[in-house]
Amino acid sequence: MNAEIISVGTELLLGHTINTDAAYVARELSAIGVSLLFSSTVGDNVERLKTALETALQRSDIVITTGGLGPTGDDLTKETIAQTAGKKLVLHQESMDRIINYFKGRVLGETQEKQAMLPEGCTVFPNDWGTAPGCGFETESGKIIIMLPGPPSELIPMLKNYAIPYLTKDGKAVIASKIVRVFGLGEGMVAEMIMDLTDCANPTAATYAKDGEMFVRVTARAQDKETADAMCAPVVEELKERLGNFIYGIDVESLEEVVVTELAKRNLRLACAESCTGGLLSARITDIPGASEVFHMGAVTYANEIKTLLLGVPEETLKQYGAVSEQTARAMAEGIRAKSGSELGIAITGIAGPGGGTPEKPVGLVYLALCDGEHTWVRKMPGTSRTKGRTYLRFLASSNALDMVRRYLLDLGGLEEAAYTQRK
Amino acid sequence: MNAEIISVGTELLLGHTINTDAAYVARELSAIGVSLLFSSTVGDNVERLKTALETALQRSDIVITTGGLGPTGDDLTKETIAQTAGKKLVLHQESMDRIINYFKGRVLGETQEKQAMLPEGCTVFPNDWGTAPGCGFETESGKIIIMLPGPPSELIPMLKNYAIPYLTKDGKAVIASKIVRVFGLGEGMVAEMIMDLTDCANPTAATYAKDGEMFVRVTARAQDKETADAMCAPVVEELKERLGNFIYGIDVESLEEVVVTELAKRNLRLACAESCTGGLLSARITDIPGASEVFHMGAVTYANEIKTLLLGVPEETLKQYGAVSEQTARAMAEGIRAKSGSELGIAITGIAGPGGGTPEKPVGLVYLALCDGEHTWVRKMPGTSRTKGRTYLRFLASSNALDMVRRYLLDLGGLEEAAYTQRK
Repeated sequence: MNAEIISVGTELLLGHTINTDAAYVARELSAIGVSLLFSSTVGDNVERLKTALETALQRSDIVITTGGLGPTGDDLTKETIAQTAGKKLVLHQESMDRIINYFKGRVLGETQEKQAMLPEGCTVFPNDWGTAPGCGFETESGKIIIMLPGPPSELIPMLKNYAIPYLTKDGKAVIASKIVRVFGLGEGMVAEMIMDLTDCANPTAATYAKDGEMFVRVTARAQDKETADAMCAPVVEELKERLGNFIYGIDVESLEEVVVTELAKRNLRLACAESCTGGLLSARITDIPGASEVFHMGAVTYANEIKTLLLGVPEETLKQYGAVSEQTARAMAEGIRAKSGSELGIAITGIAGPGGGTPEKPVGLVYLALCDGEHTWVRKMPGTSRTKGRTYLRFLASSNALDMVRRYLLDLGGLEEAAYTQRK
Repeated sequence: MNAEIISVGTELLLGHTINTDAAYVARELSAIGVSLLFSSTVGDNVERLKTALETALQRSDIVITTGGLGPTGDDLTKETIAQTAGKKLVLHQESMDRIINYFKGRVLGETQEKQAMLPEGCTVFPNDWGTAPGCGFETESGKIIIMLPGPPSELIPMLKNYAIPYLTKDGKAVIASKIVRVFGLGEGMVAEMIMDLTDCANPTAATYAKDGEMFVRVTARAQDKETADAMCAPVVEELKERLGNFIYGIDVESLEEVVVTELAKRNLRLACAESCTGGLLSARITDIPGASEVFHMGAVTYANEIKTLLLGVPEETLKQYGAVSEQTARAMAEGIRAKSGSELGIAITGIAGPGGGTPEKPVGLVYLALCDGEHTWVRKMPGTSRTKGRTYLRFLASSNALDMVRRYLLDLGGLEEAAYTQRK
């Protein structure tokens, strides 16, 4: 079975909204063994949606649309699909009742009823988080069309709870995949280290770079999940062998997830003192549910006097070495640990730009320090010569801090090296 | 002139990477008056890229590809396009020299040379932030093909500095658009309030919801920029009239940008005390270049004892009312203001979930407080009955805090209302 996604919405086409729906749908389709061939985006335009739909129905078994199911005049997906597939739209009373209930006595806009009009004979997917229901049906030529709402908060549960069960009524070939996440090695280097593995057909291995890290996706296709999993396993083992402790996790979401998990295992708390990252490190850690067990305090000490006031960084240190220095990073890490009463303190100080750089201390210069009460490790963030903008630098600095904590917790060494981008 | 984008990459198609390139290219094309008709994504697969390319060349004047220009074996874009367009790939010595220089004496991987192979006679776009150059050329049938690299850090400057100048060698009809950003009103409500405006053809107005806020895009098309701008102006004025101070900015990027700008104008500093948002509010503020002028300190007081230690929240208050309460929010805001020496203190405390909710204090309950030394305003975040997950709730809470500061600075009132989602 192969599929294609059509995302409907002028805001997506013109780039005012980033299309995260298509990525989500794609991942869920992979997981049930449906091959995705194409994904396309069209604006809120009947003719162009029709063109996209006709093309898709010719070449794919399943067509999934996202968006355009709402109450407003430019929500045209259902009308266009019904017309193209030769189906009548009829009022679905249960959906109408849900919409009335959703508005609980408030006056319904005239256009709300439009949302309960669905193709005759379709399987209705209730919208548990909004008003517009989705649906699935088969065309006369045996193709499956599925319509999902645009807002991710509505699409995600509907896909999971209704559309995927609708699609998996009978078994198909299955894809298994493993995501091997790597931090501290560039994509090019990894690509060369595992070139022979990425040349294979089934299982496949492919490298991807993203937000200053990279990952290798290993994918196998087989008749059942066990076989597919078993095909992935030796490739994953080989990757572990070659990439060693630059691998921070397999099938995990992020460095922060690993750090929170490993802290919790050891019953340790981490406190963060941030200058250039301005709270981003704390925000990433606390985005993980359950972070409150291992994280009690973060300090965003943006100004020098706050570094002194809150963390006890000596004024003398700031004056002599500057806020962006090994010495200040060290004092910040020791200060936040002492202040918070946590077992570990981590600190970041640097120059995120675009202003504030000098020849001696250019934009991109970042110092990281980690203190466990017995010892304080300080390191310069590697790869500071190529700056990629403020937002990227801040993210990269917070990733480096997380990786430093990971290396400490797992006793991997390398905490003070100027750069651990060389394979060891 | 119309265009379409083909994004190349299995990682995009399968949803392992979110496609931000297409959105960026789309916005830049709009700005120079090129109409975007379709946007599609294909994997690293010669046959399917060829299919997509042939379809695109039939219906569009300009085809822009992103991705697949790198050194690895699955980077197939140039080869496939050259073959489809009947062009030979030749070594571009200047690009080769750049690549050699980029690696500065390090050993070049065998595959690096592949990146300097470009279609004969094309205009080369240097890659100032990476190794793979892009290019543009005209096909025999007068269509324009542009190839850009996939990593956003390389694509964005290349598009801006080389591809857009290449496309705008001679003048075309121009689109002007204005983004009117709104916080505190739901999309449905705004849609009904401006329905007559969204029915027009040129200029058009359209509403979009995103991350708990919404915006109205007003777009006009004319022969020159002045005329197009003049056509947008009365619609924008009408929106201002109807949506009033729920509009937080026109052609601005974000609430945090407005807050930093307005604080700087008044020479005021803001300090943040965060519980459930865990540093996100500070991180958003410090993501704005120049934030250091108006932001000196943030405290992430995740644990109760840290709220007491750092902000002086009385233990009695925490015991009697709980960490998520009007009283604690008030004490946090007053505490951070006093501690930091800033003119304004803002605080957020709430339950981000998924755990930690009770019938009295459900997930989504968030209190915000703002203190200016004379008065402290406390409010409950509106719309807490519908939760959309931890990440969304945290973002929404930080947005509400930013809007509270905006309303204070611009003297708009409404700081203590339980909800300002009703039109006034």
